[in-house]
Amino acid sequence: MIHEDDLALMVDLYELAMAQAYWAENMTDTATFSLFFRQLPKNRNFMLACGQQRIVELIETLRFTPQQIEQLKHLNRFQPRFLEWLENFRFSGSIRTVDEGTPVFPQEPLLEIEAPIAEAQVLESLVMNYVHLETVLASKAVRAKLAAGDRPVVDFGMRRMHGLDSAHRGVRAYRLAGLSGTSNVQAGLDFGMNVSGTMAHSFVQAYPDEMEAFKVYARLYPGTTLLVDTYDTRRAVARIVEWLKSDPEAQIGGIRLDSGDLAAEAFDCREILDEAGFTDIKIMASGGLDEYRIASLRERDAPIDGFGVGTAIGAACDAPALELAYKLTEYAGEPKMKNSSGKTSFPGAKQVFRQYDAHGTSCGDVIAGVNEDFGGTPLLKPVMTNGRILPGAIGSLDKQAEHAWREILAMPELQRTIAEAPDYPVSISDYLQQLQADTLAKVSVG
Amino acid sequence: MIHEDDLALMVDLYELAMAQAYWAENMTDTATFSLFFRQLPKNRNFMLACGQQRIVELIETLRFTPQQIEQLKHLNRFQPRFLEWLENFRFSGSIRTVDEGTPVFPQEPLLEIEAPIAEAQVLESLVMNYVHLETVLASKAVRAKLAAGDRPVVDFGMRRMHGLDSAHRGVRAYRLAGLSGTSNVQAGLDFGMNVSGTMAHSFVQAYPDEMEAFKVYARLYPGTTLLVDTYDTRRAVARIVEWLKSDPEAQIGGIRLDSGDLAAEAFDCREILDEAGFTDIKIMASGGLDEYRIASLRERDAPIDGFGVGTAIGAACDAPALELAYKLTEYAGEPKMKNSSGKTSFPGAKQVFRQYDAHGTSCGDVIAGVNEDFGGTPLLKPVMTNGRILPGAIGSLDKQAEHAWREILAMPELQRTIAEAPDYPVSISDYLQQLQADTLAKVSVG
Repeated sequence: MIHEDDLALMVDLYELAMAQAYWAENMTDTATFSLFFRQLPKNRNFMLACGQQRIVELIETLRFTPQQIEQLKHLNRFQPRFLEWLENFRFSGSIRTVDEGTPVFPQEPLLEIEAPIAEAQVLESLVMNYVHLETVLASKAVRAKLAAGDRPVVDFGMRRMHGLDSAHRGVRAYRLAGLSGTSNVQAGLDFGMNVSGTMAHSFVQAYPDEMEAFKVYARLYPGTTLLVDTYDTRRAVARIVEWLKSDPEAQIGGIRLDSGDLAAEAFDCREILDEAGFTDIKIMASGGLDEYRIASLRERDAPIDGFGVGTAIGAACDAPALELAYKLTEYAGEPKMKNSSGKTSFPGAKQVFRQYDAHGTSCGDVIAGVNEDFGGTPLLKPVMTNGRILPGAIGSLDKQAEHAWREILAMPELQRTIAEAPDYPVSISDYLQQLQADTLAKVSVG
Repeated sequence: MIHEDDLALMVDLYELAMAQAYWAENMTDTATFSLFFRQLPKNRNFMLACGQQRIVELIETLRFTPQQIEQLKHLNRFQPRFLEWLENFRFSGSIRTVDEGTPVFPQEPLLEIEAPIAEAQVLESLVMNYVHLETVLASKAVRAKLAAGDRPVVDFGMRRMHGLDSAHRGVRAYRLAGLSGTSNVQAGLDFGMNVSGTMAHSFVQAYPDEMEAFKVYARLYPGTTLLVDTYDTRRAVARIVEWLKSDPEAQIGGIRLDSGDLAAEAFDCREILDEAGFTDIKIMASGGLDEYRIASLRERDAPIDGFGVGTAIGAACDAPALELAYKLTEYAGEPKMKNSSGKTSFPGAKQVFRQYDAHGTSCGDVIAGVNEDFGGTPLLKPVMTNGRILPGAIGSLDKQAEHAWREILAMPELQRTIAEAPDYPVSISDYLQQLQADTLAKVSVG
């Protein structure tokens, strides 16, 4: 398994091969690389940019260790003097990023790197892996939260997330996406999320009678949530009510439904609880939930007080990958772009200006050259210069989470629903369009 | 980021809460937990079981460190004496698994754990996370290989895999699935996969004329593969041919196509190369490939010699999650199962017998009680007893990869295609069916 203090070989081989070629040719001019996507996945009205901070921190300290240099020798591809270059590698460039938790749209750079070309090239695989993971997970989880409205959504996904790194950093992304808690102990502790959890069916089954399991748990964890669907949900809740009435010391905070028609079960359970006067016992639902099921439960006014969501957000099941690209847009002062079929992009270093109307609603973005000015809020901000993180450039997770929800709520209302929304208006500045046409003309004649 | 020598808190909170309850109640009887799935995802004719070895190795050494115990205190849920129990935790149970690289079907245990109930419960989240990841990725990658037939498939997925753990361990899963190489340097070195890579569009773009880029690369890496689709594929290949004819020292091994109509481009490029006598220069294809596109290219007889596959296998895009379950099936000698709607399972410790016909083709499985015998090959084998891995229980990756392809090729032909196949025949022994009925009757009266 990979450690973050030792990850320089988590890299696609061609990055190192290209770096060696640049080194061998003494090509040390400055390149600009831009991280963006060309279209939104199906079922996404925006992507929530996430993961830029961690990768910037890692870039600052990225080193090839002597052990790694030894390992590279086995590939028989690298010259001893290039391996020395790698061993002395210290990123010396500049990075601008949009703040984490910012909604972003096609063609908008999430991050731009400006550095000697070999240095910027070497970072490609890691930058993409980091930003892709957190952006994909945050962008799915935020939809569960948008569907749940004021009801809390808790992450239950660890078991089916793709490996431990995803299960860990994913929780950070969930925090920015507005989730209220996680079942994952380590990630909750590390990222300041409320850690929560109730019981599994196995606990109920281990006892000859489920009431025994409930009583043991309630005694040990006063105010706990009991899982009531192992055998017969309504019968379990009726028996819990009897017990609570007969034992004034018994105290539970909620019940959890994990299967069946969750709305119907919730209505029935609510009725059983309310009739006995237990109006403060909450009902939590889980079991194959995603944003659509949550929305449907809310439309039916199901009396559910909170949602546990696992697999759907854990693997971002309906859009587990984003066609994120890391493209050279400028080298040695020359704008660059490729001309491969169906893959439009724009050359040059860029800025994105988000415009707001009088009510503070964001009403459109302009993607422009880095030296243009269109008013509104420029989204890309310097976070690193000369290889060093700028003081104050990296905010606390609390601040980032606040920023995320402020920006999400500032979007037009349709963008903030889980239904398919009209495209958010993004325009390309005249300058960039002209630069694209000029560059295209140049590369076409080759 | 999580280190494998320090991952005990990568656990859902409820596992620890239940463990404390068992501890508090002095419930130390033996439990059997079974890891299985209830149905195949769409587009899968089998799942390739993978990941059992690593988790068994981790279970042997799993410890809660003093630092972790300190962290747990902050949750205000655990009694000091239970935290001592955790600090002294050493897994003492037994584990049986199917060999890695074995095709498995619904209801068949991939792994069974028998241990004092608290110990077995604590492992749930980790066991699921490990086996889920590798099984999901191997089961997708094997389809790309089945579609490619005798042409090599190389992993290009790192950038869009879910985090570094997935990008690393995924490559191990790919090796079992029959892939020929990976672009991921660290994972290739660690898991003995050929590490390969060519060049990115950025390299071509960094030069005023793409021929310059090609010449630099071929000089530095004789026999390299050139990426020819940055501007105009046919023109690039025609110019490469001119250059090769004019420079007897120039030597390339292949070209790579990464966009457009790959079959049409491959036919044209092959023709240009062959007419000039460069019949040994290979054509590699990449760019949004999955098993269906590979199959379609093969059907059109496109002259493509190898496939680079990234995102589709990296995130297992069409089935990124498997509804893997870790269920209590026996406690203190009593068979256990739950009765939640739509979630069938079978109680008791199990064995799976794979039957083969006279030609060595597997023709059906029987899921039976652990003490039954149906002939054929029993798939679940002991790998750990009393908390220790059995000598010889863990094979080399080479052996596992061989085993995988022997077992894949032993399946009925339809199972080995990417088209939807009829269900592979899996039957449940009379004993297990009766045990299910008896257990159901018992839990229904509660």
